[in-house]
Amino acid sequence: MPIGFAHSPYRATSEIPKGCGAKHDAEGVIEILPEFAAGLADIEGFSHIFLIWEFDRSDGYELFGKPPIDDQPHGVFATRSPRRPNPIALTVVELLRREGPRLHVRGMDMLEGTPILDIKPYLSSVPEEKLRRGWIAEAEARRK
Amino acid sequence: MPIGFAHSPYRATSEIPKGCGAKHDAEGVIEILPEFAAGLADIEGFSHIFLIWEFDRSDGYELFGKPPIDDQPHGVFATRSPRRPNPIALTVVELLRREGPRLHVRGMDMLEGTPILDIKPYLSSVPEEKLRRGWIAEAEARRK
Repeated sequence: MPIGFAHSPYRATSEIPKGCGAKHDAEGVIEILPEFAAGLADIEGFSHIFLIWEFDRSDGYELFGKPPIDDQPHGVFATRSPRRPNPIALTVVELLRREGPRLHVRGMDMLEGTPILDIKPYLSSVPEEKLRRGWIAEAEARRK
Repeated sequence: MPIGFAHSPYRATSEIPKGCGAKHDAEGVIEILPEFAAGLADIEGFSHIFLIWEFDRSDGYELFGKPPIDDQPHGVFATRSPRRPNPIALTVVELLRREGPRLHVRGMDMLEGTPILDIKPYLSSVPEEKLRRGWIAEAEARRK
């Protein structure tokens, strides 16, 4: 059940930046349906939010496959592929401002009209020095 | 559709640490169903993963309500309340090791038997100095 929809500059998946070092600084608007808008109270105090959304234009899934940024196949749960058993997506965006039921955000990576399932506040980060990024770091290193 | 289930030390919500400064360092196991286990390939290269799971023992939702850590009500999308329009939860855990379809993790905050919907690699953090944490920071400051 969507709580709202994304208004994004992207109309086709081919337009969305992908791969190592892809910048996601596109701005857009998350418009929450009137019946859920009361749930946004106080969200403007957060600089960043999680958007949980549906890969609504993805079809089926592949457990082991080659992502666009590597020439090696990887398990789907080690990637952000849209072709997952449950087509649920997660994006961290910067919350620029709120106008009633409309959240202006930066960091869109979803298509125009994408159904939004949930919004959560982003509360804390894992320190960079504690992160290991597996095959992604290896693929980046190979490209340098 | 669950891809697996959580094995957690927590049997009741009252046992789960909540509120400001709550430490989530409980260890547990995420057991992926045999038919999805191939999707875990290469996940062991990541130090941290996102678990997307279902609040399967939550009933209904409340758009505006008082969280346990504050005496002020807030919109549900500015909280981590389980009583949300779509009862989807998100947890960042540290991946300690993998044994076949079983992921040993630290940072459990879900109940024993919780259905897991998706797993994604944790790739990057928002720098702490760029984070604003709205009412949560205010509630913490009031308690000091």
